[in-house]
Formats: sequence, structure tokens, C-alpha cells
Amino acid sequence: MAPVAVPSTVHDGEQDLDLTSSAIDHRLTENDHTGGNTNGQTTLSSNENGNGVSQPNLHEINASKITYTFTKEPRDVPPPGVHSIDGATVATDHMITVKWTAKSGWQTPELKPYGPLSLMPTASVLHYATECFEGLKAYRGFDGKLRLFRPDCNAARFLSSSVRISLPTFEPAEVEKLLLALMAVDGPKWLPRDRPGSFIYLRPTLIGTQSQLGVQAPTEALLYIIATFMPILHSPAGGMKLHTSPDDMVRAWVGGFGYAKVGANYGPSLLATQEARARGFGQILWLYGSQGYCTEAGASNFFVIWKSKEGKTQLVTAPLDDRLILDGVTRRSLLQIIRERLSDEIEVVERKYTIQEVIEANEEGRLLESFAAGTAYFVCPVSLIHHRGQDVQIPMGKTGEGGPYTLQVKKWLGDIMYGNVDHPWGVVVQEEH
Amino acid sequence: MAPVAVPSTVHDGEQDLDLTSSAIDHRLTENDHTGGNTNGQTTLSSNENGNGVSQPNLHEINASKITYTFTKEPRDVPPPGVHSIDGATVATDHMITVKWTAKSGWQTPELKPYGPLSLMPTASVLHYATECFEGLKAYRGFDGKLRLFRPDCNAARFLSSSVRISLPTFEPAEVEKLLLALMAVDGPKWLPRDRPGSFIYLRPTLIGTQSQLGVQAPTEALLYIIATFMPILHSPAGGMKLHTSPDDMVRAWVGGFGYAKVGANYGPSLLATQEARARGFGQILWLYGSQGYCTEAGASNFFVIWKSKEGKTQLVTAPLDDRLILDGVTRRSLLQIIRERLSDEIEVVERKYTIQEVIEANEEGRLLESFAAGTAYFVCPVSLIHHRGQDVQIPMGKTGEGGPYTLQVKKWLGDIMYGNVDHPWGVVVQEEH
Repeated sequence: MAPVAVPSTVHDGEQDLDLTSSAIDHRLTENDHTGGNTNGQTTLSSNENGNGVSQPNLHEINASKITYTFTKEPRDVPPPGVHSIDGATVATDHMITVKWTAKSGWQTPELKPYGPLSLMPTASVLHYATECFEGLKAYRGFDGKLRLFRPDCNAARFLSSSVRISLPTFEPAEVEKLLLALMAVDGPKWLPRDRPGSFIYLRPTLIGTQSQLGVQAPTEALLYIIATFMPILHSPAGGMKLHTSPDDMVRAWVGGFGYAKVGANYGPSLLATQEARARGFGQILWLYGSQGYCTEAGASNFFVIWKSKEGKTQLVTAPLDDRLILDGVTRRSLLQIIRERLSDEIEVVERKYTIQEVIEANEEGRLLESFAAGTAYFVCPVSLIHHRGQDVQIPMGKTGEGGPYTLQVKKWLGDIMYGNVDHPWGVVVQEEH
Repeated sequence: MAPVAVPSTVHDGEQDLDLTSSAIDHRLTENDHTGGNTNGQTTLSSNENGNGVSQPNLHEINASKITYTFTKEPRDVPPPGVHSIDGATVATDHMITVKWTAKSGWQTPELKPYGPLSLMPTASVLHYATECFEGLKAYRGFDGKLRLFRPDCNAARFLSSSVRISLPTFEPAEVEKLLLALMAVDGPKWLPRDRPGSFIYLRPTLIGTQSQLGVQAPTEALLYIIATFMPILHSPAGGMKLHTSPDDMVRAWVGGFGYAKVGANYGPSLLATQEARARGFGQILWLYGSQGYCTEAGASNFFVIWKSKEGKTQLVTAPLDDRLILDGVTRRSLLQIIRERLSDEIEVVERKYTIQEVIEANEEGRLLESFAAGTAYFVCPVSLIHHRGQDVQIPMGKTGEGGPYTLQVKKWLGDIMYGNVDHPWGVVVQEEH
């Protein structure tokens, strides 16, 4: 949608409907990589409001200027399978930070020793959840190379989340370069070549740091990238067991921000997840609305494979257009790959579908497979959905490790990530040594 | 509601509906100040899930054990009207911090110099918005005394928010004592007796500090209380102007957490607020649902006073029972005081009401007054509501500073806060010197 020029003396009804999307348009165009609208007269959210909106002609992130300060206290790489020590996530030796102010824009990126951040007790992020993040992995390939998987997708989504939560805009390609720069330094040591098939988890994060209790968009922010260890989650014994979401907890809603990777989507869901885990389930299957539309499984996208009533094999997943669910990179990739490679066998359907449709397919013997997919859980077979006192058992294939399509798509994506095949989605890190 | 014992082999439909409320019940009863249910066999969310739920018999906050470390670099009190320096909120010399771990419970409260917090880049609060806060003021009375206004209400709500966002439980009365302790030390200097009628803003905050990227309830947290300066917001020239919320932004929803003072309610709303301000409005009037129910004005509760069609004078505001809105201390107090003192003139009505009802009352000449109320904005008259191209003008009284009922309730509450009258809601701080 094009940015809307709203002379302050005119208020028509239509313009009153889109405050959030207008603000997003203004933010993206005034950052102006496209020669777009930067005229203060016609974009009302630009200079005159004085509350932290980024202005044109400020410094962009410039990854080519990065400064390097290497650690003097290198730490040991944990043994395979260890990802936390005393409840703390293990990180690599370094991190990248980039400061931003509304006045000057982005400062020089710094690669420096991993360590604590200093934040005033009044920092925006600690009160108003002005925070967003990304998650992607670096994979040590069986060919010895280190790869990121589609980091351009994560960088683009990071921008979209940042704008949604009133944090600054940036050029996504520069963030992608910062990801590669961190892995170029820490990759060789922390994902050694003698551990092919292992991964490290990258977490780009952006937080509002202004020391200001007024409820407003922060005028100072910090972007940082850390590289951490994380358990392998994609093959729980017996498959992932889901508990449908309770009536007393809605994860996301139309007109909300379910599509964005902002902190506000996570903290509020912990309580229901904790209770479901205490009851023996792995994640919540988040339903939406009185019809019980299936949306996400935990913090992953959710998929079923069934025979339609007409006998067609379909992969069904929630659509993106109502912005309830995250536009997952794994989701997008597996839909693409299935469309490319299995179009004669299976139809990809992105549409709203209800838990009752899933139950009915199960009762009629049409439910073939189900899985959750995302960076953390990769492609994780779902074996059971518990809904309002009923258990829906889902076939887990001959090996008990997932249905055939689930395993097929997992293999195809894994082969790209770990360099068993050459594919443009696998971006090779140029390591330092 | 009593905690529900759920044997793990039985899953009935009814128990599937209340994951969040069950978890809240478990958290509150296992903290057990009441001799309630602490039997691990019957409260499934207690010990066995190992993910940060507080356990019985851990250390409680004990305000009587507070340790004092006074600043060696006292700062200057800002002149009246100054509340920020270089965009940073001015705070007093000291703050109070209390650490918590799932293993040991609450540590000894410390009063110490105000200064930065050190958080690992993996800290829960920076990623998953595991954060909640309170806001209340300390008032320098015209009788020279320093008072808090109903701090017990804030402390109780702080607990409710903390549980909702998977942070630890505590004894609210101890937090109230910590508030008094901070003001006992910093009150005399920062709210000097020669500035009667001034206030300071207290911000108790609780954040998840565990350095862990796993999406889970944090096992480490930090409670802190700071005292800051804030502008006087309750009398904007010409009254507060509201813009109704757009279709593309819902603040809170049934099954959400609109009632809790958690960061996740604030960050996501900044964008629409910023756009509304750029268009000349002070705050958003948040509507809910396709009917357009009036809920909150900005981060304040919202009120209209009208003549009903039957000719009764009514004060109308949204109800608490669907948990969409914050149970405001100012809201609660003014409803109580109007019921006590004006019951023969005005009927207090807590019910759902739509923007169309407000517009209709205006068109029929029945709309008398409107105001927003909360700690930050106190009782702030509303002069205009802009909805879908229409302006609803609201009478601002003879003086132009608000309608007569608005000014009356503002005076009554202000008199209690500033000690013009003696009232149990005004809790006097025993100052150190």
C-alpha cells in the first residue's frame, strides 16, 4: 500500500482505519532506499512529532565499517549436546552490537567479546516490550563448509518486526552481512569442521534502550547479534504431542501482531504452555476464534497432510493474509520445495481450517501426517493432538519417526542446510581461518 | 476458583479449557500464605515440571531485612517542571532491588544507588517480554507530609501481573513496605517540604533475568523499584483529544491479558498512538470488537457522563469482568467516591457500551462530560473524540477546564493525595529526617 498523505486539517473516515499500517508505510518510505516519499509536508509521522521516528538521511547500518575487538578470555567450546550451563545458554566468544539514536541514526557496528549489557532501570525495553528478534542457524556441512539458510528472509522479517514494535528501520542486507561477519570469526572454533551435522543458533535482537518512562517510541535502540547453543528439538521420542489452546488464552488475533517476532507474542503464552507441559504435552496448538482455526504449534508453524473428501492428498497450513501467524522461513521453504518437487502427488493448500476438520479427517481415516516447522524445531512430527477431552492420534510412519512426506521434506531441507546438495538457499560463510 | 487436581491419566474436556487460569491458581496457592494446597501429587504445575515455577517453602520477600548502601554521588533535585534530561527520565538517588531464583526464592532486598542494571544479552526479558510493572505516585502534601495513594492496590495488582507473565509470586504487603522504605530515604530530599502539591512517580518493575533463550518461564528474576519525575499530564490545554482505534490495531482481547500491567500491552500500541499524535490527537480510544465497545483511552481508563434516554445522569465506564481493561486504582477510587458521595445525583454504571452510543448521546444533546483516569493522567478531561471521519465535541464546563463532575472528583481525590483531608487511602510515609 502506498503511503497516504494526510493533510492535518482533513480527517476522512477511511484514513481513520489504518493508523498502524499508515505508520508502517511512513517508517519504511522515509528510510528511503527507493527514492520514495520523504517530504515532511505529506508524511505526518516524520519529523514533526518528535518522538523517535527515524528521519531520512540518517546513518544507515554499514557492515563494511565493522570494528573488531577480540576477546582476551576465550572460553571452551561445550561438548556435543551441551547447550546450557547452570541454566544459562552457552554463547560463543563474540557478539556484534550496533547502537542507534533517532538523532544520528546507526553507529558503527562493533564485533566484541560476548558479555553483559548495561541498561538503565528506566530502559524502554524493560517496561514496554519494545523488542524484537530473529532466530536462524549456522550449519556445519558434511562438506566442511559453514552455511546460513536463507538469511535474507530472516533479515527482511527482522525489519518488519522492528517497524511493528516502533523500533528503527535498517537495510536488511547489512544485517545479513553482520550475521556472516560474526560467523566468519566464531564459526571455525565454535562449529569445528570435525563436527559436521552440527549447528549454532544465531539470535539477532533489537531493543529500545532509551532511559525514559514515558510511553513512547524509544529514541535510542541497540541491535545485537549473538551465537548460541541450543538443543536438537526436531525428533522427540514418540513425536510432538499438542494440547489445543484453552478458551482463556488467545495467542494472536486479527488486528494484532502475531506475524511479527516481537517479545509480546511470547511472554504471555508461557503460562498456558507451562500448564500443558505439566499435563504431559509438548506445545500448545493455538486455535483462533469461535470456529477453532488451527494457527501455530507452540512457536512453530503447523501443518497437516490429509486426503480431502474428494480423495486428493493435501498439505494444509494456515494462510498469511490475516497476519495471525509468523511467516516462517522453514514454512515458506518447505511449501516451495513441495510445490516444486511433489506437485503431482500432493497439493499445497494455504487456507483457514478448523480443529473440527482435523478431527473429522481423523475419524474418517483421512488424516495422514502432521508436523510443526520452524527454525528451533526444524520439521518435527506431531503424533497427537488433545482437544477438549479427545485424543487425535496421528500416524507416525513405519519407523515411528514421522510420516513419509514429513521425513522427505525434512531430508530435502536438511540436505541444503548441511551441504549435501548445492542450493542457492544455503549461503556459505567465508570463514577467517 | 479452587485449584484443580488433574491426574495425568485423565483428560476431560472441561479441564482443557482453563490452562491459563489453572496455572494462575497453582502459582498463587503453592506460594501458600493461607495454608492452601501444596501437595505435589495434586498440583501438577508445582515441582515436577522443572521450569521455573516457584515452589513452596522458598524465601519470601522480607522488607524488614532490607540493607542500605547510600550513594556517594548525590545528584541535584531538578527544578520544578523538569522531569527528563537529554531524553532520559530523572530518577532519585536510590533504588531498591530484590533478586529471585526458582531454587532459593527471594533474596534480601537492597536499597542502593540508582544506576544501570547488568543483563546478559540472552536475558529472558529482552526476548520474550517477561516483564511487568506498576505506577504510583508519592505526593508532598500541603500539610508537609508525604503520602502514597492506596499502595496496597498497586502491590496486589503487581502480583496479578507477575503471575500472568510467568514471573514469581510474592507477598504484596512486603512490596508496599519497600515502596515506603524507598520514599522514607529519598522523599525528604527529592520531594522537599517547600514544594507542597508536587509528586514523584514510583515504578515497581519485575523482569525475567535468566540468561536462557529457551522459550520458558524464567528461573531468575529481578524486582526493582525506582522513583522518577514525570510531567503533569492531567490538564492539557483544551482537553484531551482522542482518536478511535483503527481496524488494524486491537489493544487487548478477550482471552488476552489487557487487565495486566505487562510490557506486552504497551510496545505494540506505540505505532498507532504515534500516528494519532502526528494527526493531532493525544491518545487512542481503544475500541473492541465489531460493535466498537469503548475500553481504554491510551493507557488510562475511560469514562463518559451522559443523560440516559430515561433522563438519568450516569457515569458509564467499561466493566472489569471480561478482563479487557486494567483495574485502575484511580478508576476504582473515583467510582467508590462517586457512589458514596453523589449517589443521589449520578448513577455509576460499569457495562459494555459502544462508540455509537456515545455518538448518539452527543447527537441528542445527552453527552455531558468525559474524562480519562489513571495514575499518569490523573483525572483528565476529554474534549473531543474523532471516529471514522466524525468529531464528537464534548462540553468542557464553564471554565473550559472540564465538566463539573470531572472537576469535583478530581478535587476530592487530589485532596486525599495532598493531605487536604484525612483519609485512609492516603498512606503517610515515615520520613527519615
